[in-house]
Amino acid sequence: MAPQLYPRYPPELTQSQSDYLLSNIKDWSIAHGLAVRPSTSFVPGGQDSTGALATTAPVTLFPSLFPRACFVEALSIQTAYNELYAAIAQDERWLQGIVEELLEIDDFIAELWKIHLKVKEEGYVQVCLSVFRRDIAKYDKQQSLGLFRSDYMVHVDPLDTLAMPVIKQVEFNTIASSFGGLSSQVAKLHKYLFSIDAYPSSSTNIIDPSKLPESRSIPSMARGLALAHLAYGSSRAGLPFCVLFVVQEPERNVFDQRHLEYALLSTEGIRSFRLPFHRILSDTRLDKNRTLIYTPPHALEKSYEVTVLYFRAGYSPSEYTNQSDWDGRLHLERSAAIKCPSILTHLAGSKKVQQVLATPHSPHLKRFVPDEHKASRVQQTFAPIYPLDKSQAGNEARKLATDPDTAVRYVLKPQREGGGNNVYRKAIPDFLKAQPESHWPAHILMEMIEPPALTNAIFRNGEVQSGGVIGELGVYGVCLWRNGENGSPGEILQNYEAGYLLRTKGDQSEEGGVAAGFGAVDSCCLVDV
Amino acid sequence: MAPQLYPRYPPELTQSQSDYLLSNIKDWSIAHGLAVRPSTSFVPGGQDSTGALATTAPVTLFPSLFPRACFVEALSIQTAYNELYAAIAQDERWLQGIVEELLEIDDFIAELWKIHLKVKEEGYVQVCLSVFRRDIAKYDKQQSLGLFRSDYMVHVDPLDTLAMPVIKQVEFNTIASSFGGLSSQVAKLHKYLFSIDAYPSSSTNIIDPSKLPESRSIPSMARGLALAHLAYGSSRAGLPFCVLFVVQEPERNVFDQRHLEYALLSTEGIRSFRLPFHRILSDTRLDKNRTLIYTPPHALEKSYEVTVLYFRAGYSPSEYTNQSDWDGRLHLERSAAIKCPSILTHLAGSKKVQQVLATPHSPHLKRFVPDEHKASRVQQTFAPIYPLDKSQAGNEARKLATDPDTAVRYVLKPQREGGGNNVYRKAIPDFLKAQPESHWPAHILMEMIEPPALTNAIFRNGEVQSGGVIGELGVYGVCLWRNGENGSPGEILQNYEAGYLLRTKGDQSEEGGVAAGFGAVDSCCLVDV
Repeated sequence: MAPQLYPRYPPELTQSQSDYLLSNIKDWSIAHGLAVRPSTSFVPGGQDSTGALATTAPVTLFPSLFPRACFVEALSIQTAYNELYAAIAQDERWLQGIVEELLEIDDFIAELWKIHLKVKEEGYVQVCLSVFRRDIAKYDKQQSLGLFRSDYMVHVDPLDTLAMPVIKQVEFNTIASSFGGLSSQVAKLHKYLFSIDAYPSSSTNIIDPSKLPESRSIPSMARGLALAHLAYGSSRAGLPFCVLFVVQEPERNVFDQRHLEYALLSTEGIRSFRLPFHRILSDTRLDKNRTLIYTPPHALEKSYEVTVLYFRAGYSPSEYTNQSDWDGRLHLERSAAIKCPSILTHLAGSKKVQQVLATPHSPHLKRFVPDEHKASRVQQTFAPIYPLDKSQAGNEARKLATDPDTAVRYVLKPQREGGGNNVYRKAIPDFLKAQPESHWPAHILMEMIEPPALTNAIFRNGEVQSGGVIGELGVYGVCLWRNGENGSPGEILQNYEAGYLLRTKGDQSEEGGVAAGFGAVDSCCLVDV
Repeated sequence: MAPQLYPRYPPELTQSQSDYLLSNIKDWSIAHGLAVRPSTSFVPGGQDSTGALATTAPVTLFPSLFPRACFVEALSIQTAYNELYAAIAQDERWLQGIVEELLEIDDFIAELWKIHLKVKEEGYVQVCLSVFRRDIAKYDKQQSLGLFRSDYMVHVDPLDTLAMPVIKQVEFNTIASSFGGLSSQVAKLHKYLFSIDAYPSSSTNIIDPSKLPESRSIPSMARGLALAHLAYGSSRAGLPFCVLFVVQEPERNVFDQRHLEYALLSTEGIRSFRLPFHRILSDTRLDKNRTLIYTPPHALEKSYEVTVLYFRAGYSPSEYTNQSDWDGRLHLERSAAIKCPSILTHLAGSKKVQQVLATPHSPHLKRFVPDEHKASRVQQTFAPIYPLDKSQAGNEARKLATDPDTAVRYVLKPQREGGGNNVYRKAIPDFLKAQPESHWPAHILMEMIEPPALTNAIFRNGEVQSGGVIGELGVYGVCLWRNGENGSPGEILQNYEAGYLLRTKGDQSEEGGVAAGFGAVDSCCLVDV
């Protein structure tokens, strides 16, 4: 039983109220690009062969309740998290230790690490910032951009009814952090619905514009890309500049990405192109200085110098279908473009890193966040995470995971990125028994977060489903840094919190990911509990 | 053969260029609400029973060429046209003469006229403007709003190759002038496509941002509704105010209307509701002062005082399916709300009025537009229009229409609003012979406008069709006036041009109306010819 925390919510709707609310959601969403391409379960493949149809992105009918103090804390500590992961991404030796434990059991991480080693052997391109030419010696370093998202759930101790709710981190994303384009829009949608009295007046003591925080994710993330673009410095090849969005194709969640592209052009005046992951080698080349040159297929007579590579693809093993995909990733890593993320930043987001940081009494967090107060606040968001290796913590974990009585408080997750394939609670012992013990370290064991009971309704594929839900708060962070040399610390150039996302899913599914069809984008209605 | 006027256009596209252009059109349009609900030919009825799917509104791939002088003239004379139709709508006796000629042959106009007579008998509600209380005697009059659209085609005299192209009016809309919401967006789309080099560089000597006029139709029309809302004055019933959009249901072109609603709320701070035409009597009532009270079905405990009735329905005979629909229209006309349009303004837009004004040597235009220069410019946009009655002009017209040699230069149009059912050129003589001569006066005979040859491509229902097209320029006009008393002239309070629309259709179809699936929304690329 999930603990009770919130007032009764959302209000019941009469048929007329529901009709009014839904017709406004359906129209506002399309008028403002809060949309996705429909799934094949909604529009069968072939019927819309050119991909001209769209539908409302899965959204909640009401903004979900969320404890104000938890919301404020999650946003407040984002810059500390940015700092933490920027530091990890710069500490190659430390990362090497992490990665080497996984080389045998995780091919994907092994291949990514190989790319890093190859580029390291050749030498990463040193960026020359002519805008700071006075300080050229100081600034002659590689730069990296992170558009991060740290995901949390509200946790209420089921054994201590007086405890305040706290946030516990679910995961930290260092690559392809999605929904920043839609989250700005869904917060606006819910505010709009309030403003036109689409929420029954009985609920207006709970829903109130002052309790509906906007999400500045679109302009904030676009600004992040723009800052990296500026930091690239002056042209190396004498060509016009562009930013490349490295994307999957087809992409149902395309409008999420497009909002960032449009903001980048209209607000920052920066051109960008969408480069399908499988076209890296055909549409780009490196010149002798390893400047990345992009030639658009629609304008072969034109060439652009790529300042920033923004990956919305390449994060999942299934995308690498043959050697040329790996060659493409290496090709981009070798280039002088600022990567969002670099291979090391991508690896810093592996679950193994999260586990090492969150292993009880771990010394690592202090290493990367020297400020004790900051580190302590970050530490408090960790749910205890155990390795399943031969260490002392690993031995403890093996006991917890194989005993059905204790396993019910845990979730088993693969080390790899991408979501899915989690094993929950009482299913863990049998799952582990079914495979050789040598494979166990490919997983981590994490204490389950116990979110408070919450109800909402989700509009998806033209249908409304109501019931118990779980909300996951994602906080975006922008961090631009210049790497240190030979392990010495680098310099953070930009570091800010960049808006938020609430993703809400049915509490039965125990899986996340709105694009995969399991949930909805949502915004927060803050409550003081 | 259509006369040649323009340079070779648009450029040919390679497959890659076409892919790039289309993928950007498909994504930008949905991200910015340049959308419609799909037709049942695209998505069969039942598949999307809740109406959650949308698709790109039919649009042209390129902005269509349009002579700059014609464009400037069409926009310049809009205020004169507004003045003309506001004057006609105030001259009940003159309109009576027009309408009486049609009573026997046009049931729809006859019924509208009956509504006017009933309200007149009871007396139109006199609006009291407390904001101008000092001048109460002067301002104690009925007020009307027109959101007009005057439609033109470019005409090139096929017999005089040296003649400059001119604009000729197709029709003047006084009710439910549509596409103002989408036309702002399509002009932005074409500008965006230029800015991302989606048009091949070979065409950039023709396409250029300075030649792509924006259309301010969304804010301008929303401002018109807001000005009428303000002119309504202080509350008569002590209730919060609202504007009502009287709409058809279902409405595929809903986003066009929604853009005006959203602008009205966000820019002007004015609440509006959508009232389906068939729900007039169930959702509104008149109090003893004939103040119109709206009670939303979703919030029966709330009531609003309606300031402005904006009709996006009620213009077509097919919408009046039973007596209660007529009762509903009467009910609204009796109210104190400012109508956009009133019955008289609606009637002023009948083709018979256009015909009477454009009948060669007609005395009527001068009567309504005393300024000779203004009247002359308006006059020049008339294509000669003949009645098919027993007058001298009518006798001439009968000869022209029944002789196959002369009929080829003409189109036969029904007097009624709504488009469709036109008979063209050589089909006219047989069409007339097939019906009794007593029915002939239900039509007018209009000289065909000869548009220059033009090519473009239209994206509709996920498909591209290229070929010869005809563009129709619609210029929006906002006019708010206070009626005179006993036939004396009233006072124009607001009068401005409110943006433009280009509607482009295949030159084979000879039918207009994008919503009906026959064309596309478009914007102008101005050329000096």
